[in-house]
Amino acid sequence: MLRVLKGNILFAPAFGSLEVIDHGCIVLQDGKITGLFKELPERFQSAESDDFGDALIVPSFCDMHLHAPQYPMLGMGMDLPLLDWLNTYTFKTESRFADPEYARKIYHEFVQKLIDGGTTRVCMFSSLHTDATGILMEELEQAGLCGYVGKVSMDRNSPDYYSETTEESKRETLRWLKESERFQNIRPILTPRFTPSCSDDLMAWLGDLAKERNLPVQSHLSENRGEIAWVKELHPDCERYWETYHKYGLWKNGTLMAHCVYSDETERKAMRDYGVTAVHCADSNINIASGLAPVRQMLSEGVPVVLGSDIAGGAQLNMLDVIQMTIRMSKIKRIESGWTTDFLTVAEAFYLGTSAGAEYFGDRPGFVPGQSLHAVVLDDSAFTETKNLTLKERFERAVYLCKPQQIKAVYGNGKRIK
Amino acid sequence: MLRVLKGNILFAPAFGSLEVIDHGCIVLQDGKITGLFKELPERFQSAESDDFGDALIVPSFCDMHLHAPQYPMLGMGMDLPLLDWLNTYTFKTESRFADPEYARKIYHEFVQKLIDGGTTRVCMFSSLHTDATGILMEELEQAGLCGYVGKVSMDRNSPDYYSETTEESKRETLRWLKESERFQNIRPILTPRFTPSCSDDLMAWLGDLAKERNLPVQSHLSENRGEIAWVKELHPDCERYWETYHKYGLWKNGTLMAHCVYSDETERKAMRDYGVTAVHCADSNINIASGLAPVRQMLSEGVPVVLGSDIAGGAQLNMLDVIQMTIRMSKIKRIESGWTTDFLTVAEAFYLGTSAGAEYFGDRPGFVPGQSLHAVVLDDSAFTETKNLTLKERFERAVYLCKPQQIKAVYGNGKRIK
Repeated sequence: MLRVLKGNILFAPAFGSLEVIDHGCIVLQDGKITGLFKELPERFQSAESDDFGDALIVPSFCDMHLHAPQYPMLGMGMDLPLLDWLNTYTFKTESRFADPEYARKIYHEFVQKLIDGGTTRVCMFSSLHTDATGILMEELEQAGLCGYVGKVSMDRNSPDYYSETTEESKRETLRWLKESERFQNIRPILTPRFTPSCSDDLMAWLGDLAKERNLPVQSHLSENRGEIAWVKELHPDCERYWETYHKYGLWKNGTLMAHCVYSDETERKAMRDYGVTAVHCADSNINIASGLAPVRQMLSEGVPVVLGSDIAGGAQLNMLDVIQMTIRMSKIKRIESGWTTDFLTVAEAFYLGTSAGAEYFGDRPGFVPGQSLHAVVLDDSAFTETKNLTLKERFERAVYLCKPQQIKAVYGNGKRIK
Repeated sequence: MLRVLKGNILFAPAFGSLEVIDHGCIVLQDGKITGLFKELPERFQSAESDDFGDALIVPSFCDMHLHAPQYPMLGMGMDLPLLDWLNTYTFKTESRFADPEYARKIYHEFVQKLIDGGTTRVCMFSSLHTDATGILMEELEQAGLCGYVGKVSMDRNSPDYYSETTEESKRETLRWLKESERFQNIRPILTPRFTPSCSDDLMAWLGDLAKERNLPVQSHLSENRGEIAWVKELHPDCERYWETYHKYGLWKNGTLMAHCVYSDETERKAMRDYGVTAVHCADSNINIASGLAPVRQMLSEGVPVVLGSDIAGGAQLNMLDVIQMTIRMSKIKRIESGWTTDFLTVAEAFYLGTSAGAEYFGDRPGFVPGQSLHAVVLDDSAFTETKNLTLKERFERAVYLCKPQQIKAVYGNGKRIK
């Protein structure tokens, strides 16, 4: 079926650029983009249209690292040191997802909040529970989102009430993969929580599985100094953190690594060489006082970088807030460097929060013919002076000021989902 | 008239502490607090009541540094270097307030946004226009806010289209003071924009006026390195920036100085010794990449510190967002210090954004009998798991998650204004 979206179209076809079509049209055929037009061609005049008038149509967001079962603790425990935070809140909250009824209630709400904020593609951690992970995947798929969800693997250095034996972990992972076959757009991703919480046996088994079934992998890397020292203790044969994933076959093209705050030149080179993507989580890195990730450096060295809300270390689920915080973090890096490092512009950070994630999923950046539409419609009409601004000014302001109530419509995978 | 507010009462009676009354009452007599009670005494049972059920009643916010005529450019020009930002946006936007009709329209909306976000006390910069400044004061007063507004003085180093001669500046300042006599709760504050934009003649005249009429003073101090070097060039006799205010009698008890990012030990000592208050503006300092103010240091040395949104260098008008950013900034300071400096806890930053400002205006911190009520009511009932949390947890989460739509009621100077 043909459909036409009308409005002001803005997108980043490449990192740092911004393309603008003043009062243009996006034509869809069965949810896939047919073309972008300044004037609607005659042959599409009879198509059904979603006319958004003077609103802004921009790509939707990709949240590439977040912990779904930490949603109930969003904004809580922010004064606690990392270990107390994990023990008082995180593990306790995650362990409640042993109860499928609780999982259903929370995940249903959580998925609605994602859509409200304009996120349509995700890579997320679930808890270690197979059933709750299935419920999460089902809620995401039914709501029209796309991406990866991982049942967390953790068979050591975890609290008694929230851990699995190596055997359980393997068995449940296989059961989860089997049950995930029923989903189309939400696919499984292997998810060792991080090196300290997985035995060598489990890591090796996950690496073999990743290879056998061609499954993607996500985990955490070089988030804080204490963690890095701990990993070094556990794997004295590994010079750097990334090697603990590499030695088990988990460091490969398409692997996602959250944080990479302290990834040095060697580790960054290994990311680029293997096609491992860094997920920058600015708000979380600040809230937990982890450190300032060298995003500009990674980008200039050719390391793929995407963004993550990392709730509940991050306290912001809306990706526009995450994009803003990414800019702020880059300005802090600029200050820290004695004003020698460039900060990320609005267009650059927006690219990282939208198109860079889309590229991870195999799409080309921007609104490209042949691709399914992932877009949000931002209504900035209630803001001051909208009539007197350029579209580029309105776009920049929208990134700073728009909240879910200004997100008038969301399209995920070609379908309108808000 | 007697009135009773019912709800969960939380406030900071001192920096770092948090007092909680689970389902308590605040009794008001003609807008002034008579007492706080866990159980409402018999003698007040017949009073009219505002029953907020399970919501949180907390002190309202004091925004102690912001530029009202920059409201139309909120969230814009964030990619520009400071000087381009000033020339492309700031001065042009402020100069539009020469038109009283424009001023009326914008300031009316602006004041509503302040109240929506729970701000009831302010110290703000207007533009250099006397008439627009009167309109701003009128809008604030009519809406029920309290505090200070300053017509900006700037007779040099300013663009042709937005500057005044020394004579004009003096004459207009006197006219503004005369016209301000009609206001009760919004009072004038002398406002040299900053040292570089005021001639020595004007500074000396303002200093005399401040003394003669016992008027408070606000300005900017040590915001960025370029500015400090410029001030040094203009006043080679002054070892440090603060002395350029001191030599004209503008550095005195009650003076407010925005930023103080680079105030060294000597300058901080001068603040403490003279009773000069620092207004910390975290979001603005990050957005403009000014630097990281030593807030914890100032506090430990006894310098009074309050918070400001500093729109439009700051992109956040809501003080809950400003309080959050203050916490984040303090965590960045912690990282920068090699994890030796404590960050600001939620309760500490909340104190700075509420009670510390109230103290500047002569109130004691918290809800104190005899004082007019300044309070906001936060409705967190739509958040997850509210029933299972302690009030302290709900309070901390509210600071991170509440937006204007969760601010159910606002009391300014004893009256309900939202």
